[in-house]
Amino acid sequence: MFGPIFVPDALRAAVCGRAWMRAMLDAEAALAVAGARAGLIPTEAAEAIVRCCDADLFDPAKLGREGRPAGNPAPALVRALTEEVSKVSEDAARHVHRGATSQDITDTAAMLVSRRALDLILGEVDGISDACATLARDHRDTLMAGRTLLQQALPTTFGLKAAGWLVSVLEARRRLSELRASGLAAQLGGAAGTLASLGDSGLPVLREFALELGLAEAPVPWHTDRTRISEIGTTLSLLAGVLAKISHDVILMAQTEVGEVSEPAGEGRGGSSTLPHKRNPVLSVTAAANACRVQNLAHTLQAAMAQEHERAAGAWHSEWEALSEALALAGGAAANVREVVEGLEVHQEKMRENLGATRGMLLAENAATVLSERLGRLEAHGLVEAACRRALAENRHLREELVQDERIGRVLTEAEIDAALDPAGYLGSAGAFVDRALELYREEEPS
Amino acid sequence: MFGPIFVPDALRAAVCGRAWMRAMLDAEAALAVAGARAGLIPTEAAEAIVRCCDADLFDPAKLGREGRPAGNPAPALVRALTEEVSKVSEDAARHVHRGATSQDITDTAAMLVSRRALDLILGEVDGISDACATLARDHRDTLMAGRTLLQQALPTTFGLKAAGWLVSVLEARRRLSELRASGLAAQLGGAAGTLASLGDSGLPVLREFALELGLAEAPVPWHTDRTRISEIGTTLSLLAGVLAKISHDVILMAQTEVGEVSEPAGEGRGGSSTLPHKRNPVLSVTAAANACRVQNLAHTLQAAMAQEHERAAGAWHSEWEALSEALALAGGAAANVREVVEGLEVHQEKMRENLGATRGMLLAENAATVLSERLGRLEAHGLVEAACRRALAENRHLREELVQDERIGRVLTEAEIDAALDPAGYLGSAGAFVDRALELYREEEPS
Amino acid sequence: MFGPIFVPDALRAAVCGRAWMRAMLDAEAALAVAGARAGLIPTEAAEAIVRCCDADLFDPAKLGREGRPAGNPAPALVRALTEEVSKVSEDAARHVHRGATSQDITDTAAMLVSRRALDLILGEVDGISDACATLARDHRDTLMAGRTLLQQALPTTFGLKAAGWLVSVLEARRRLSELRASGLAAQLGGAAGTLASLGDSGLPVLREFALELGLAEAPVPWHTDRTRISEIGTTLSLLAGVLAKISHDVILMAQTEVGEVSEPAGEGRGGSSTLPHKRNPVLSVTAAANACRVQNLAHTLQAAMAQEHERAAGAWHSEWEALSEALALAGGAAANVREVVEGLEVHQEKMRENLGATRGMLLAENAATVLSERLGRLEAHGLVEAACRRALAENRHLREELVQDERIGRVLTEAEIDAALDPAGYLGSAGAFVDRALELYREEEPS
Amino acid sequence: MFGPIFVPDALRAAVCGRAWMRAMLDAEAALAVAGARAGLIPTEAAEAIVRCCDADLFDPAKLGREGRPAGNPAPALVRALTEEVSKVSEDAARHVHRGATSQDITDTAAMLVSRRALDLILGEVDGISDACATLARDHRDTLMAGRTLLQQALPTTFGLKAAGWLVSVLEARRRLSELRASGLAAQLGGAAGTLASLGDSGLPVLREFALELGLAEAPVPWHTDRTRISEIGTTLSLLAGVLAKISHDVILMAQTEVGEVSEPAGEGRGGSSTLPHKRNPVLSVTAAANACRVQNLAHTLQAAMAQEHERAAGAWHSEWEALSEALALAGGAAANVREVVEGLEVHQEKMRENLGATRGMLLAENAATVLSERLGRLEAHGLVEAACRRALAENRHLREELVQDERIGRVLTEAEIDAALDPAGYLGSAGAFVDRALELYREEEPS
Repeated sequence: MFGPIFVPDALRAAVCGRAWMRAMLDAEAALAVAGARAGLIPTEAAEAIVRCCDADLFDPAKLGREGRPAGNPAPALVRALTEEVSKVSEDAARHVHRGATSQDITDTAAMLVSRRALDLILGEVDGISDACATLARDHRDTLMAGRTLLQQALPTTFGLKAAGWLVSVLEARRRLSELRASGLAAQLGGAAGTLASLGDSGLPVLREFALELGLAEAPVPWHTDRTRISEIGTTLSLLAGVLAKISHDVILMAQTEVGEVSEPAGEGRGGSSTLPHKRNPVLSVTAAANACRVQNLAHTLQAAMAQEHERAAGAWHSEWEALSEALALAGGAAANVREVVEGLEVHQEKMRENLGATRGMLLAENAATVLSERLGRLEAHGLVEAACRRALAENRHLREELVQDERIGRVLTEAEIDAALDPAGYLGSAGAFVDRALELYREEEPS
Repeated sequence: MFGPIFVPDALRAAVCGRAWMRAMLDAEAALAVAGARAGLIPTEAAEAIVRCCDADLFDPAKLGREGRPAGNPAPALVRALTEEVSKVSEDAARHVHRGATSQDITDTAAMLVSRRALDLILGEVDGISDACATLARDHRDTLMAGRTLLQQALPTTFGLKAAGWLVSVLEARRRLSELRASGLAAQLGGAAGTLASLGDSGLPVLREFALELGLAEAPVPWHTDRTRISEIGTTLSLLAGVLAKISHDVILMAQTEVGEVSEPAGEGRGGSSTLPHKRNPVLSVTAAANACRVQNLAHTLQAAMAQEHERAAGAWHSEWEALSEALALAGGAAANVREVVEGLEVHQEKMRENLGATRGMLLAENAATVLSERLGRLEAHGLVEAACRRALAENRHLREELVQDERIGRVLTEAEIDAALDPAGYLGSAGAFVDRALELYREEEPS
Repeated sequence: MFGPIFVPDALRAAVCGRAWMRAMLDAEAALAVAGARAGLIPTEAAEAIVRCCDADLFDPAKLGREGRPAGNPAPALVRALTEEVSKVSEDAARHVHRGATSQDITDTAAMLVSRRALDLILGEVDGISDACATLARDHRDTLMAGRTLLQQALPTTFGLKAAGWLVSVLEARRRLSELRASGLAAQLGGAAGTLASLGDSGLPVLREFALELGLAEAPVPWHTDRTRISEIGTTLSLLAGVLAKISHDVILMAQTEVGEVSEPAGEGRGGSSTLPHKRNPVLSVTAAANACRVQNLAHTLQAAMAQEHERAAGAWHSEWEALSEALALAGGAAANVREVVEGLEVHQEKMRENLGATRGMLLAENAATVLSERLGRLEAHGLVEAACRRALAENRHLREELVQDERIGRVLTEAEIDAALDPAGYLGSAGAFVDRALELYREEEPS
Repeated sequence: MFGPIFVPDALRAAVCGRAWMRAMLDAEAALAVAGARAGLIPTEAAEAIVRCCDADLFDPAKLGREGRPAGNPAPALVRALTEEVSKVSEDAARHVHRGATSQDITDTAAMLVSRRALDLILGEVDGISDACATLARDHRDTLMAGRTLLQQALPTTFGLKAAGWLVSVLEARRRLSELRASGLAAQLGGAAGTLASLGDSGLPVLREFALELGLAEAPVPWHTDRTRISEIGTTLSLLAGVLAKISHDVILMAQTEVGEVSEPAGEGRGGSSTLPHKRNPVLSVTAAANACRVQNLAHTLQAAMAQEHERAAGAWHSEWEALSEALALAGGAAANVREVVEGLEVHQEKMRENLGATRGMLLAENAATVLSERLGRLEAHGLVEAACRRALAENRHLREELVQDERIGRVLTEAEIDAALDPAGYLGSAGAFVDRALELYREEEPS
């Protein structure tokens, strides 16, 4: 019941039991093809096996139940596949799963499942970086309060905030792309990682197996070297962290009292008939929830690296569902954040209004700097600080205090005071930073 | 496909989407009953609502999909329930979900789901403590090597090892029982935790609601006080840690080179047609995998305690599936460990044989102590250490070295040397400790 | 350099290397006393040992360096202690550490260190619950906006928010008190948990040892049953979660745009000479940072439960510093939160002002309910919804729209409309909930 | 007291409070230099500042205490530095910290501290990969049992096990090198990430600042984009996982009953005068403990990515000590594992002996394969399985059963049976895999 709230259908389909089963069948088919190419298996036998590696012939739930005594579903799948093949050819049936161990098939399937899910995730992440780039560009000069420790600090622009999101998303995308391109490897080692039962044909079969699946060929079997699995986890965790940051910013800006953005409206989304003023940032909220869970699931994968000897006694088993969930939930978070940044309603007037919440004091630093040029640093700072104290105590605007200060009035005109208190005049390199982020975006964009 | 490998059907059924939906309907029904008792709702309306709170009338998957815009399934359920009730009585339909907010229903359902799952888990844990008690009793005097840092240290008994398991299981059981008895509370606070829409009837409705469900009545709504959820998590984590310890001990004792126990045989379990000598400790291995995952899921629940204001922006949403999985996997681990300890094959002769692996040196401490009584401490220790060095260097038994040492021979007979090197004579309080554990077990046993 | 920012001096002193060393010496002294009482050690020897168990005689840093080859500091401490004792009496020196193993001393020290730190933590937690009770009482009727998903939802009171904090703090306090009272046990098992070298005196020595230290006597040695350590961790994690919730609420309420509370001012705290308007919620911020770290350290302790055989190969070693840090950081968070709640500046007028941020729509639900009594439910809700839509679209106050609506005007006077939109009139059971929390507080208060 | 057990002195020195303070001073010095190069600060002023950025002039503990009100030590350091500079030149003192915010200095220091620690860690990792390569080469053909789920499965070589370690270490080293080379960036953004107070000089100052420190220049300030910090964490976590795997293998092989390796002997290491046979794998044990803690600390860093707006309210503060500890403990684990693999005692004869533990059944698969060539697959497998059953039941060697089987005797000579049961004849691609790992090692070796 909760699933669809957090994970889009396509991602769920990519990591579900059936997807794993299909990937395991793909591995068995590739193994048969590789065996044939290496001359170990008659071509017709391989063809028969490949034909039977058809997901419609098998039931993942049944395999799961039958997999309980062995502690993994591969032996049940091999039995069922062998049975199917033997209906076609007893000889071909003898060659099913030739040379492989259960973990070879399951690990290779993990790579195929991850590849499919990563493709979907990368699609969402591309959308996010495009939309962040657009926000950064469109709002390069949209003024808003910069906030540190959730207190207004100095003016900034919404463009710079979006540029910050963009840069982090590009980094996550780079890591995801590298992982997709070279982090996924075929697994084939046989019962103890030596490919003993393949005799002299081990390496040729391994090479063809990896080629057939479009996966990298690891130098040695990685049954208990889980750097690959852990790196999938940490890359998803990095993405999750990036998405959490964006989501939290949106949630905070969408607060009733801040009101600077709203999530895109949608049928029934975030509203309430009894609470008509509410615009719950539901997409960001569920993205944040997913992100937290992804990072904990990634921790499960990292902790699972301590695997014993040639096959682990538990750590391996803890990976399968954690990996699937991490992929699904990371993809769900990405899909949500994409929808948010693509359709974000930006309330510029409210951003501008909030800049006034401190009654000019957000610009006190600048006023003191400007005044320093006329009066010397020490006196200037003293005068502005005193003005701020008065403004705070009497709940007045800093401008009034500065204008009414005789000493200041002698060296600064009202127009100069207004200029010093103008947020647009105290943005430093904000625009240039936005431009740098957009340049990075253009460079990293696939042509 | 992986599910059945880790979680028994009954536990999966207790925490699945349908179980949650049923629990949410139970909460809605109880709310109607409470409203009627408090005089807010006509009795006939409440009865109509109760009749419609029938899980067969609703589809959890559909509710999940419809719950996506709101970020939780409760509004969709309320809509569907209201529709069902309005088929019977338009008036009754107006009273559906009266006074409650989505989180009231979902949190209360979480309690009901947890209660059902805890009952199943407690059943397994009872079985484990019974079996551990039996092992401790039956093997009170079964000699084996005590091992520290995986090195043999001194003799102990298998009964004491089982007694250690037993004591930790009893502690986990105590915590689970307390949680079941008093840690689960009804949730009812309305949109902001004030029960505003119930006017003066808030407290009476809350009281009846809790009573009807057999849940505790919290002093204030706990929408963002997640101590309850976190305590479910930490209690499951404690259980998981206890089960992991037992599982690891079994896996280590079942090693080919140690061979002191085997998991109960089962159809297709842990064996291999190509590797006939293998007896994979599959139950312990999957239990260990579950335990690790439970502890990480519990961490998700602990981290989710930092919830904002009157309802959280993400942390709450991260709980539902993490809680369900933690319950399911903890139960799965418990079921496996129960099967292991109930049917454990204990190879006493191999335990005894392994005691000889250090060629008597396991008892060197005792030999030195015995010799001290005749020769003075310093000389005694010097002689035994020298004998050990010779035995290690020349790969001989310590007995030979002691017997052949002239100085020792003058004060100890061969029989005395044999006695000093007899593991059974150097068990200290092992038996007494076993008895204490069994006494604790009897005391805590429900009459 | 970072330490003092997060941990008060007293707590740091309670868990530092010297504190551990002192606790280990306390354990050795108690062991000598117990041996004497059990008749194993001459009274004078025990007295000599006790006199030498003086922390000023030893250097924890040196013991740490010397402890590296053994992987724990106990053997170095025993050597150093034996040397000191032998200066006084060669005979007494023979009885140092009699019957114990390194882990006995280290684990017992862990309990003593935890007890001291828990006392300090409980002191802070008492202060928090007192202050929360005061806030709840003083602000029982202080109106503020209730917020869900960081959106204003309905009116509530600051008293109810503080009451929610109070209830969660009381639960954490209850758990901490139980832990302090009965969760800490002496450890004494000897090299393999059998107390072999104590012969028949094992149980008497254990009993006297525990009595002397004021610790519970575990039924069996708990060298690899880490439920105690894990429970310290999870209890601290629970406290951390409770403190994180309070801290986040304070940080959110202290936002520039919300401005409902300020942390107590302090010399140099949270201010900035260049940003005079800032009042950084520094105490809450560092408390939140601590809380997050405590929960992760607690996870280390939970994961460390999977310990092998009679002594673990790594998991035990991972506990010591994690436990110390968890205690220190939890105490630091508690000290900060205490300072915050004891000195919190509550800006009631700003709370009241923020209630108007939705221009009356916060009370739309109530308006519809009131109107229902005159017009029937359907029509009433339709009219109020329409009024809300107009108010939102035209940026007007709901009151205006309701007053100007002819149909409404016919059945409700302006005064009635004002009453319906008065937050104080729609608080449901808020006050009663506050009273219940205060009653719980009074009940749990130590007399 | 525990510190030196887990962390070597050099690493502790690299991450201690003084090291952080020195790095912060380096950042302040570089900022002055950059300001001078950009024409913002007189050269002499910059020189005066640089001269005062001398760690001997400041006390990290004092800064920590003074940093408590601000929640970080940078303001106290800036005050102290300004005071020192003003002793030399009042004018120069005005330019201290020009344009920077506390987080600029602290984050940049984090990068410098990490760089220094990574250099030390990489040194250890180089040693590990060298030693693993040597073990793989030297033991390319050293027979041992391959073990899955801690059960003997098939023969393998110790060289292949070491090659597996090597490949995972090389991957971790590659990641660490990349991180060292390009993952560390200077931080300079000013109070809200706009470099507002630097006017038009922001970018030039940033460029010179990064250049001066030899750090990368980030496209935009990364105050709340914590991908860098998180990647340090995940890379250390990856390394920790790799080291944990090696450590667990060593601990398991060093078991009394397995006895295939011993850790290098060392003064007082792992031995016991009372338990002379023990050779505790202390280095691996503490490395495993460290690894577990590193992964949890890395989790703290990942979770800290969800940072608010322009500066976080807690998550940033949770990074400093977690980062320091993760670096220190990862380095400690690496140093230990290096010492282990460099000095590992490999007991080849015991490895060979253990291969006989299953009385030939480890080779049953091969026997069946060989027999298949004479008898057909089905009959061959049936005969071998029956022989295994008899051998298991009667506790005999498979060779005897095969030799005595009439049907087998007719088609296989005793020599052929011996060959089929020879572990050296059933190693498949083990040697080739070792060669591939060594090739990878040579390729990745810095020339």
